[in-house]
Amino acid sequence: MNHDEMMTLALDEARRALEHNDVPVGALCVIDDRVLASRHNEKELRKDATCHAEILAIRDALSMIGDKYLTGVTVYTTLEPCVMCAGALVTVRCERVVFGAFDPKSGAASSLYNLCCDPRLNAEVAVVAGVQQEACSRILKEFFATKR
Amino acid sequence: MNHDEMMTLALDEARRALEHNDVPVGALCVIDDRVLASRHNEKELRKDATCHAEILAIRDALSMIGDKYLTGVTVYTTLEPCVMCAGALVTVRCERVVFGAFDPKSGAASSLYNLCCDPRLNAEVAVVAGVQQEACSRILKEFFATKR
Repeated sequence: MNHDEMMTLALDEARRALEHNDVPVGALCVIDDRVLASRHNEKELRKDATCHAEILAIRDALSMIGDKYLTGVTVYTTLEPCVMCAGALVTVRCERVVFGAFDPKSGAASSLYNLCCDPRLNAEVAVVAGVQQEACSRILKEFFATKR
Repeated sequence: MNHDEMMTLALDEARRALEHNDVPVGALCVIDDRVLASRHNEKELRKDATCHAEILAIRDALSMIGDKYLTGVTVYTTLEPCVMCAGALVTVRCERVVFGAFDPKSGAASSLYNLCCDPRLNAEVAVVAGVQQEACSRILKEFFATKR
């Protein structure tokens, strides 16, 4: 599957967050075209601001493969990772992150910082930005429009 | 209790990581002199590179207080937070982080970055650096000396 098709799956996952009134962000961990984990934002559901889609997917994938690192794994996420999530991607040494919408207010893989690619850190994570950018932005805009 | 006394408790917690051969780092979440959570690094124990002391303590504290944010909470940690942990501190909007040893290789609350204090992000977390710096460094140096 290509990046577009994987991002479509991540968007499907993002929509599940709407069921519990969470900001619709979805994330997948993928290796060799196999989806290891697919999660959405559960901040409100779990009353835990750290429960971003990426963090939950990373934890599931680590548990799936039984290793402390996600070597060779690509993480797909509908929204540019924040500082915490970009740090987690580096910490688990995944190979690549592919994101959809840019987050000009708190994005840390292009917008405010690119923490995935700092040669001073232990690992670097390749970044592919803006895959299905419009669809990934639209779902967020529609969600926030209902909040006004 | 003052910062020195709290850091002594964090150091006691850090030592518990040695029982399972993890890098000895300890972290507390404290509000009004009450310790909500006390955890140590469990990366090796859980085969999960995201299981830093700060992340585990933050998750416990959120669950203790039943809120999605750690408003008013001070996090004590024996080692300067990495990018992921600094991001988590901002994400949960805790009030302050107090750390012991500086981490020149991956510290993100003074050394490489100060991600806790970026006015562009949603929240800022005050940083108190170098409390019991020598004791917090020594326990790490002793651990790594046994690995050579």
